Amino acid sequence: MRKITVLPSPIAIVSSSAVGGKEEGEGPLGGGFDLIDPSDSFGQSTWELSEAEMGRVALNIALRKCECSHEDVDVIVAGDLQNQCVASALALDSFGIPLIGVYGACSTCTESILLASALLSMGSNQTAAALTTSHNLAAERQFRAPTEYGGQRPPSAQWTATAAGAFILSKADKLVTNGNKSYPYVPAVKDFMIGRLIDGAIKDGANMGAAMSFAAVDSILAYFEASEYSPKDFDLIVTGDLGSVGSSILKDVLFEKLPLAVPKLTDCGLVLYDMKRKDVHSGASGCGTSASVLASHILPMMRKGELSDVLFLSTGALMSQSSLLQGNSIRGIAPAIHLSAIKNDNYEVK
Amino acid sequence: MRKITVLPSPIAIVSSSAVGGKEEGEGPLGGGFDLIDPSDSFGQSTWELSEAEMGRVALNIALRKCECSHEDVDVIVAGDLQNQCVASALALDSFGIPLIGVYGACSTCTESILLASALLSMGSNQTAAALTTSHNLAAERQFRAPTEYGGQRPPSAQWTATAAGAFILSKADKLVTNGNKSYPYVPAVKDFMIGRLIDGAIKDGANMGAAMSFAAVDSILAYFEASEYSPKDFDLIVTGDLGSVGSSILKDVLFEKLPLAVPKLTDCGLVLYDMKRKDVHSGASGCGTSASVLASHILPMMRKGELSDVLFLSTGALMSQSSLLQGNSIRGIAPAIHLSAIKNDNYEVK
Repeated sequence: MRKITVLPSPIAIVSSSAVGGKEEGEGPLGGGFDLIDPSDSFGQSTWELSEAEMGRVALNIALRKCECSHEDVDVIVAGDLQNQCVASALALDSFGIPLIGVYGACSTCTESILLASALLSMGSNQTAAALTTSHNLAAERQFRAPTEYGGQRPPSAQWTATAAGAFILSKADKLVTNGNKSYPYVPAVKDFMIGRLIDGAIKDGANMGAAMSFAAVDSILAYFEASEYSPKDFDLIVTGDLGSVGSSILKDVLFEKLPLAVPKLTDCGLVLYDMKRKDVHSGASGCGTSASVLASHILPMMRKGELSDVLFLSTGALMSQSSLLQGNSIRGIAPAIHLSAIKNDNYEVK
Repeated sequence: MRKITVLPSPIAIVSSSAVGGKEEGEGPLGGGFDLIDPSDSFGQSTWELSEAEMGRVALNIALRKCECSHEDVDVIVAGDLQNQCVASALALDSFGIPLIGVYGACSTCTESILLASALLSMGSNQTAAALTTSHNLAAERQFRAPTEYGGQRPPSAQWTATAAGAFILSKADKLVTNGNKSYPYVPAVKDFMIGRLIDGAIKDGANMGAAMSFAAVDSILAYFEASEYSPKDFDLIVTGDLGSVGSSILKDVLFEKLPLAVPKLTDCGLVLYDMKRKDVHSGASGCGTSASVLASHILPMMRKGELSDVLFLSTGALMSQSSLLQGNSIRGIAPAIHLSAIKNDNYEVK
């Protein structure tokens, strides 16, 4: 049976930021983003460098919100979709923060928050950060073809988000930063479950939602089998970027196996964009999707007390351009974190 | 100042395996490898799948050595050099072990052992694994050009190893497996330090040793500044794959700043191959280098009691084909683990 790791004490997400491009700004969550660059370029000369700069901006905003300096951060866990995760490397070297580089495709956000929580729960580390980025135009030309090519996309295809999410984590018993005074609650990681690779036998790179949906099924069933919780204990069960195709598979299976979970389901890939917009097709994807939806939408609701407990599973599709060309199926993975809103003792009513 | 994470109790590396190809088998450490495939193909139809199969074989051998099943392993931390780390994904899905996917370029071995130790030091996990692979022929055509092209390589270039290293880790107070009876000592992770990104302003993808050497300098100096130890407390300070160019930079700087460390230095990139062999140039590279040298050479010496304390720093060069073509410099990183030989209470003298 899978194991849940219960943290010795909850790890608070004391600050977060979401940064995005034009399409993200125009979506229903645009108002929750901390910064939008309608040019998608963030002042850089290549899309690859634009992604790195977007990550830097997101991290700086998250640090400023909790009145932290980069020197206060003991470790950052970061990842992206560029080959060799080079967007994270180019984004972060000037900060000088010790780095754990991860690759989990679109599961990066949950994977990095999970690891940051683990690294804070042991040793003398006090503050950690997590950063996830993806950029539509860097990803499209790397995984598929340059957008100038104008390739057709089938209805199951998703739209890679130009978005970054940054998170500052701290031991919950040491919430000393000023940024915490504004809200009655602080979202915290209570427990987590590491994801398993699941082969759903999908070989179509334009149908990643289906490929990931089986991993989401696996993790949600395993979480409720291994933990003391029922879906009733959660306000939401949030998947990463299954989109409409993957979400409908997930719902169909859970309706049979764990019907209580079905009404709690929501998917970041379905809420980032107006789904009626041209070209969105099955929804948003890219690891920036779940990172920016968490930072712009879920965590703010938790801070205000509108959500109490959330099971959050970013979902990753593990494949490369060459693995698809060689005919290998896409492996899915869905690590899970249990976020819980804890009372903010530093809250000052204005 | 950088922080050392001292583990609450040492995490034992109860088993390890090294698997490689033709060149690795013919090198000075060939006899220490558990399996060599002189065809480099491991029975697969593409080099990318060969790397995945090599990883599977390495993990299975390591599990068998400590009489473990994959079902006993609570988490595996794994990484490789293929785009989107797809070698690890293709290798591991059939095992069903919860996976943390990492990307640290050639620092993957140290990064993954460090994280596996951290994840064992908290929660209820009892056994973890770490797996690192690289394959010369998969890497060459991805990062540079297919070898059939016959491109010239400058003297600073290194030879990407076709090699895998697998490690099984366990809480040292629960060494219950039979594989531990054969040796008087068990190597264990005592403490670790996460690496920082260092930009050495090297933009030449055929000179990764120089690019990584500055990160090795940074981590070695930081480790001895932050820890209670002196280089005298270590039998060896082992870097990953600086090769002859990078190692000579490291020695020059340490000769000025920490001369006590110089006589302890050794580099995995200098010991995997016969350095007089044609085409090796500056030495071995690829994340399989430090993983296989650790498994085939360093850990066996520790088990016999020939080495007591080793500071082990796999060194990574963070770059991609497109980041180099766009003129960005390579970022180096060098996480460090302190390995210490602890007495094996289960040792049975034959």
